[in-house]
Amino acid sequence: MVFRSARAQPAAAAAEYEELARWVPADRLILDPSELRVYECDGLPLHKEPPGAVVLCASREEVIGVVRWCHERRIPFVPRGAGTGLSGGATPVPRGVVIDLNRMRRILKVDVENRYAVVEPGTINMRVTQAVEAQGYHYAPDPSSQKACTIAGNVAENSGGPHCLKYGMTTDHVLGIEVVLPDGEVARLGGPLAEPPGYDLVGLFVGTEGTFGVVTEVTVRLTPSPQSVRTYLAVFDDMSLACRTVAEITRQGILPAALEILDRLTIQAVEASVFRAGYPQDAAAVLLVELDGFEAGMDEDEEKIRRIALENRAIELKAARDAAQRMQLWKGRKGAFGAMGRINTDLYVLDGVVPRTRLEETLNEVYGIARKHRVTVSNVFHAGDGNLHPNISYDGRDPEETARVLAAGREILEACVRAGGSISGEHGIGVEKVDFMPLLFGPDDIQLQKDLRLAVDPLELSNPGKIFPDSRSCIEVGKRRWKEIPL
Amino acid sequence: MVFRSARAQPAAAAAEYEELARWVPADRLILDPSELRVYECDGLPLHKEPPGAVVLCASREEVIGVVRWCHERRIPFVPRGAGTGLSGGATPVPRGVVIDLNRMRRILKVDVENRYAVVEPGTINMRVTQAVEAQGYHYAPDPSSQKACTIAGNVAENSGGPHCLKYGMTTDHVLGIEVVLPDGEVARLGGPLAEPPGYDLVGLFVGTEGTFGVVTEVTVRLTPSPQSVRTYLAVFDDMSLACRTVAEITRQGILPAALEILDRLTIQAVEASVFRAGYPQDAAAVLLVELDGFEAGMDEDEEKIRRIALENRAIELKAARDAAQRMQLWKGRKGAFGAMGRINTDLYVLDGVVPRTRLEETLNEVYGIARKHRVTVSNVFHAGDGNLHPNISYDGRDPEETARVLAAGREILEACVRAGGSISGEHGIGVEKVDFMPLLFGPDDIQLQKDLRLAVDPLELSNPGKIFPDSRSCIEVGKRRWKEIPL
Repeated sequence: MVFRSARAQPAAAAAEYEELARWVPADRLILDPSELRVYECDGLPLHKEPPGAVVLCASREEVIGVVRWCHERRIPFVPRGAGTGLSGGATPVPRGVVIDLNRMRRILKVDVENRYAVVEPGTINMRVTQAVEAQGYHYAPDPSSQKACTIAGNVAENSGGPHCLKYGMTTDHVLGIEVVLPDGEVARLGGPLAEPPGYDLVGLFVGTEGTFGVVTEVTVRLTPSPQSVRTYLAVFDDMSLACRTVAEITRQGILPAALEILDRLTIQAVEASVFRAGYPQDAAAVLLVELDGFEAGMDEDEEKIRRIALENRAIELKAARDAAQRMQLWKGRKGAFGAMGRINTDLYVLDGVVPRTRLEETLNEVYGIARKHRVTVSNVFHAGDGNLHPNISYDGRDPEETARVLAAGREILEACVRAGGSISGEHGIGVEKVDFMPLLFGPDDIQLQKDLRLAVDPLELSNPGKIFPDSRSCIEVGKRRWKEIPL
Repeated sequence: MVFRSARAQPAAAAAEYEELARWVPADRLILDPSELRVYECDGLPLHKEPPGAVVLCASREEVIGVVRWCHERRIPFVPRGAGTGLSGGATPVPRGVVIDLNRMRRILKVDVENRYAVVEPGTINMRVTQAVEAQGYHYAPDPSSQKACTIAGNVAENSGGPHCLKYGMTTDHVLGIEVVLPDGEVARLGGPLAEPPGYDLVGLFVGTEGTFGVVTEVTVRLTPSPQSVRTYLAVFDDMSLACRTVAEITRQGILPAALEILDRLTIQAVEASVFRAGYPQDAAAVLLVELDGFEAGMDEDEEKIRRIALENRAIELKAARDAAQRMQLWKGRKGAFGAMGRINTDLYVLDGVVPRTRLEETLNEVYGIARKHRVTVSNVFHAGDGNLHPNISYDGRDPEETARVLAAGREILEACVRAGGSISGEHGIGVEKVDFMPLLFGPDDIQLQKDLRLAVDPLELSNPGKIFPDSRSCIEVGKRRWKEIPL
């Protein structure tokens, strides 16, 4: 069972797209239905929708051209980077245009003295670090997909990653954005100097999931690379003990660079795959701990972590002795999602947040929900942030199983909210969780967000149907604050 | 010369305010013209305007009542905390209502385990730290006015302070906000868990200077207090050498908790005042350096700083040996603005930002501009952030001198922008710098901000005339994005 959007969108005749061929080079315009299928989903295979056209834009001017063309014709458009997003932020809109940004991947400027770089939107996350690591810097947010995902995609979803525990999310590392607004005008927000006056538009734009226009340039913060890095693996025969170790490490005021847990099923999938990291296959949980910073003081933190792990009955403790061993320990974590391809044909990666102190009980609930709905769930997660990723492996060709996957997914997110948490830590709402927004927000709070969206995109052309249900046809939307505007 | 706003506002007959007396207790409603004069300005004495009425609100319900009353009658209102703001963010609007929040100063909740506190808007900044310091925590942003200024005022202006170099501005320490929107409805944004999904409304609201409604509750982040703090004073007979010392400390990757510079005139004013800190009165500049964090590694940083200062010909170096000596070194910095009361009757505190690497040349420009306009300028500033505070002392009763002060102020901010900087680091735009916004933003960029403001406050009742020129009477405002909305 695949959900196809039933929301009304302005229909555009296929002939209309042929207009684009007048000025978009043939090798960068996709109109053929079989080729369009490649773009029917991103990293969320639960929702599929072929677009009306795809334009592989190679410059800001081309983005402006496509957006203006769409604006004039009231055709919705969806910006797209690498398509690694997990909440369907790049799911096409029926008959809409996909604006593909992968040809715009130049690093335009590097200024390590002032600690920033200016990059095009399709620049791959990892390439930013590669461009500056010789000078002792890196780009801190490191999603699991960092070898593929793009900076503008990270901006759209406010992406996180293992090291965001210490270094903060994408929003903490974006200093400026150039965006083509939904009517085709260009705004330049922020810049290399932090905190410009006026409203914090950079902060507002990060995480808007493409609903505020198309990003064409990003100024990112460069972070000095740590003098020293130490990585440890603690092995447990009980998941609860791994969770308690995490809670105790943070309670003692230690701020590791990363605190990641993998559960038994994840460990087994990883160890059976090319991402084999040497995790003990009979363990109930492994905990990866990374310290970074100055060498001074690390021995003390290491000793504390060792003591806390042993007090929580860790059955094995390993320390990476060099960079190669460190990479080896991380290989399993970074490859975990790939390894799950071994379990079944499809994977639904959930993204819930709970207070760290409630990880243990929420995980127990997650396993219970999976049993109840007879679905296969594995867990690999940013334990230090309380950011769970329950992963449900399933066969998407089986509609009955898919329905159980969706029911289990909803219950898991409801459990996170009940625990005082949230329905998204780092993947965004996309199309996946549109219907779950009322779990967290009252109607007025959602309305306030929609009003802001309408201020930027009154026609709802830029990535409609994401985050909030589309409001185009609803005459009541916005009425509270809009009815009194003297126009 | 004092500027009184000439902007058209809806006139409300004084009789209309008498309506408030029906439900606002007499001791919390100010209508008497001589008492209203107390509220005619905040920390920016250049702009004065008596309000039509002041309500000393004691609860969220009273705030809602006043806002609704204003909304129904189209009367503008201005939220006000301690009135310590330096850009005129709390300057009254002609015949508008001032909503005073100083009676709402309870600390509602402290949760050190999850590192947050919930406070009422009028809570004094310093009180938050006092409430949690015994448990080893503090509230990090520390404006010079922290013994008087309120948390909601800090939220409105996104306030900074010496330690924001390491710990970030107010926006980095606010997790949730309860706000009475301009139509009287209540929105609760964010909460103790960081990064809720959907648009980052908390980030958007911080720094909106009261233009998005009245804050009635704030959830702030609590920061673990450092294990160790070390404070140093380096004395120079040349300001340029002090600036180069700062640039070199940061270039070597040291991140002090604070890097503050005071110039000769500031030192002399401080040493002649009750804030006497023992700074050498013949020095051209003193640099305060504070390190904090774990004891381990501090000796190395201290040695590096000592070497860099000596290489830049510091003529004296002092280290505080204990908490009392540390307080003594800070006393002059914290009291600098108070001490300037000795120089003349009025003080115009400017707030410009430049890249750290251009501090030296910009300061030279500042002194040149002061000479040209024959005004007295002293400088005390957050050197690590490149955040300058040129302070012009003057006699506000002399209109000719006041005109020179304003001309010099404008030239100084223009110099900051030319150096690649900004017109505000931490004080906001308020009424002071409304006319300078075009130095930084193009018309479209300002329009985008105004459109967002109109989405939240279509009648422009909440603190109108701040940040942007008031747009109420301008039929063209917002037309680009608004004209096509199907209403």
